[in-house]
Amino acid sequence: MADETKGATHLSHGPTRRQMLGGALTSGAAFAIAGQAAAQSSDVQDVDVVVIGAGASGCYAARELSNAGHSVALLEADDRVGGRLRRGEVNGEPVDLGGQWWGPGQTLLDEATQELGLTRLQQNIKGRSIIDLAGLKFEYEGEVPALPDAEMAAFVQGVETIETWASEIDPDAPWTHPRAKEWDSITCTTWMNQNLGTEFITAFFKFAVKGVCVVDPSQISLLQFLFYCRSGQGFVTLISTDGGAQQEVVKGGLFQVPQLMADGLGDALHLSSPVRNIEQDEDGVTVTAETGVWRASRVIVAVPPAMAQRIHYEPPLPAMRDVYTQRAPMGAVIKCYVAYDTPFWRDMGYTGQVFFEGDANVFFEHSLNDSGKFALVAFMDGEAVLRWADRTENERRDYVVGEIVRVFGEAGANPVDYTDKAWSADQWRRGGYGTQPTPGAWTVAGEAWNRPVDRIHWAGSDTSAVWNGYVEGALQAGKRAAQEVIAQL
Amino acid sequence: MADETKGATHLSHGPTRRQMLGGALTSGAAFAIAGQAAAQSSDVQDVDVVVIGAGASGCYAARELSNAGHSVALLEADDRVGGRLRRGEVNGEPVDLGGQWWGPGQTLLDEATQELGLTRLQQNIKGRSIIDLAGLKFEYEGEVPALPDAEMAAFVQGVETIETWASEIDPDAPWTHPRAKEWDSITCTTWMNQNLGTEFITAFFKFAVKGVCVVDPSQISLLQFLFYCRSGQGFVTLISTDGGAQQEVVKGGLFQVPQLMADGLGDALHLSSPVRNIEQDEDGVTVTAETGVWRASRVIVAVPPAMAQRIHYEPPLPAMRDVYTQRAPMGAVIKCYVAYDTPFWRDMGYTGQVFFEGDANVFFEHSLNDSGKFALVAFMDGEAVLRWADRTENERRDYVVGEIVRVFGEAGANPVDYTDKAWSADQWRRGGYGTQPTPGAWTVAGEAWNRPVDRIHWAGSDTSAVWNGYVEGALQAGKRAAQEVIAQL
Repeated sequence: MADETKGATHLSHGPTRRQMLGGALTSGAAFAIAGQAAAQSSDVQDVDVVVIGAGASGCYAARELSNAGHSVALLEADDRVGGRLRRGEVNGEPVDLGGQWWGPGQTLLDEATQELGLTRLQQNIKGRSIIDLAGLKFEYEGEVPALPDAEMAAFVQGVETIETWASEIDPDAPWTHPRAKEWDSITCTTWMNQNLGTEFITAFFKFAVKGVCVVDPSQISLLQFLFYCRSGQGFVTLISTDGGAQQEVVKGGLFQVPQLMADGLGDALHLSSPVRNIEQDEDGVTVTAETGVWRASRVIVAVPPAMAQRIHYEPPLPAMRDVYTQRAPMGAVIKCYVAYDTPFWRDMGYTGQVFFEGDANVFFEHSLNDSGKFALVAFMDGEAVLRWADRTENERRDYVVGEIVRVFGEAGANPVDYTDKAWSADQWRRGGYGTQPTPGAWTVAGEAWNRPVDRIHWAGSDTSAVWNGYVEGALQAGKRAAQEVIAQL
Repeated sequence: MADETKGATHLSHGPTRRQMLGGALTSGAAFAIAGQAAAQSSDVQDVDVVVIGAGASGCYAARELSNAGHSVALLEADDRVGGRLRRGEVNGEPVDLGGQWWGPGQTLLDEATQELGLTRLQQNIKGRSIIDLAGLKFEYEGEVPALPDAEMAAFVQGVETIETWASEIDPDAPWTHPRAKEWDSITCTTWMNQNLGTEFITAFFKFAVKGVCVVDPSQISLLQFLFYCRSGQGFVTLISTDGGAQQEVVKGGLFQVPQLMADGLGDALHLSSPVRNIEQDEDGVTVTAETGVWRASRVIVAVPPAMAQRIHYEPPLPAMRDVYTQRAPMGAVIKCYVAYDTPFWRDMGYTGQVFFEGDANVFFEHSLNDSGKFALVAFMDGEAVLRWADRTENERRDYVVGEIVRVFGEAGANPVDYTDKAWSADQWRRGGYGTQPTPGAWTVAGEAWNRPVDRIHWAGSDTSAVWNGYVEGALQAGKRAAQEVIAQL
């Protein structure tokens, strides 16, 4: 018979700490920076916990651990803090190139903004919004247009179905629902084409998937969409401004939240430190980054699964974990700010909120922090991103301004500034807002999505059962991972 | 306005060779092995082409380049040659733990086995095969059981639909079919549930997807399945033994093909050399592996996209390429050999070929090279792999032997040897047989699947338009990539 230990339980026959650590320092598995002296044992920095990724989740986790008295190294690949929250500037004012909104029910983000002394401002809802899909155009106040009876009936029925099914999902284990296999085997496109009554309502729901998940509805299963709705307190919450997930912005930018948290961590933060290797043994974990080697009791990987899989692990991660990460790609989004001297849309009686067909198909007003400067925010999502992410910012600006003119007329033709962020082109995130597991992924490998692998714990909004994909989810996952680790230290 | 060059054409404003190479050696982007002196310029090895991955595709490409007079470094992460072809041993005889079959139409593999002096043997087709799905069981000779009329009509109609649509696909660009978007938006599960007449035929087609693509049919779109059939010369070809893709095996093992090719490359082959960084500039490419640094004019990455994305690239790859690789996971398969003293199934009048329901749901006979020793090969595929890949070989053996007994009775209860290979647990492949793009991937990011990125060319069976996922596809892709490179040298 062949070797009977082959494929045995992870780490159960692993090397001792001494063997592993020695191996890390003498074999090809550990690196030192070329041009420096090779790493010696004395170069290894000892901490209780290494946190990888200084986005909102990693910063929150590191702060929790530090507050609990544990030593931490927070390693960030990029040269800045924030992850998918990022400072931009347009017309001389800071803007959020990434996540920007707070909504009711987001408790940790509520606490964090208050504790950090940040001011929240209402997203503008004064005026008429515009929906223009599948040949029907509505201008309306509030959250829902006055639809013709047949459309309204189809809308209500569709919403009730999604809300009811979503409410039945266990957000900690969506694969356990009795219909999980069925719902994970059908794409949102198929389900919506076959179950939503009218052409307009079908287009609206597919549009909502694109807007909320920033993927083409063909790319995710109905189960993933139901999970996402459940995780974010319901479909209507996710698509709403007033009372929903787009209710408030943070004056000066939401990106300040991780920035201020990281400021409190002092020299525990290491920027420009991409992690290449995570080696664990029975006694601890050795983390090798471009800037050094750390030895810790536990590690929290607070980057999206699609990025986490690009780290090299010894011993290799279990098959189920790897299969999950192979099937957990990022959504795709480009966020564009177009600044104007005047809020011409307000003068025309509009909120600035527009949902329509095109490559930049969602507009919101951005009020530049009540500073008397004004901008529209345009989103490209899903498939459209692939047409624009590898082009120049100038090309994108010309297109987006053209689309604003198409909606509002020549009043939008003369912006005073423009900036954007193509998240799919960002080397260390490769997409946004968050992870959108592919059809079949939840029911085949979902169990591995946030389950620790021995001494490795997973954070990031992508691993959160609540407000998955949102900043709140990032904080929740950071808190959960910190608690997992603290319980073991 | 913001920086107008942001997001500009890839490499158009890249650094000079000197800047890039200098940067590689002085910044954190290049590594030397800890415990050795840091890499100096003099340590960089110059070759015309670096080939990454010594599977069948990389070996073929390296050989083509070498035969054309170009210097090559063939870097393999593992400590052996062969990739998804691998030598195993059971009952004292070599067996193929990975790809094993040759079928008509596989021209390069035909040439290679002949040129390398290998003998091909017929897969045994004498006797009755068994199919037992959805409550219907048939024992039959040849390729298709004598189905009841209603089942046969549904079978013929399903086959004709798949074959007709597959024949319309351009295997070089499946996203260009007029119905590509529609077919890429529906999973195989949904399409087969809704279009295949009887319960048995629906189960059979879903079984065929699982067997051929080794994924759950919920995990791929109809478009991917049509592409796969088109690429492999048709659905019936892929599922057939005599006259199909499982017609012949290689005496002594198909794994000898890449092994013998690599033998001819001498010291161009570097084992245990995982590549960490690929940095390209206007003049060339710097490839950093754990064992050294190479400078070349071009590089061929001959590993699956899911593994290729785990290399660090400078400058970062275009967004479309990265989105494609995030949506291009591997299939999942475990291949199990159970050796017996006698071919008891032959004595019972069976071929050994069984298709049925369970976690090890496909059996074939393996005749151990006509040596008078006998074995059954059992496959676990798709979802079942996740239940077994992280367990011990002993547990898998007990299960598989139990399933053999369930089919053939107590005659199968006493194997003389067992071995298996859980490809999803293999650190450097993380699955098999090949890449199975997720729903929506082809139509959103398909253009990037095998298109070179400046000086980086893509090989591996996963990038082949013909016989995608098969060994023939590996050779074809290796040849194509070598030709792309030779045209530029």
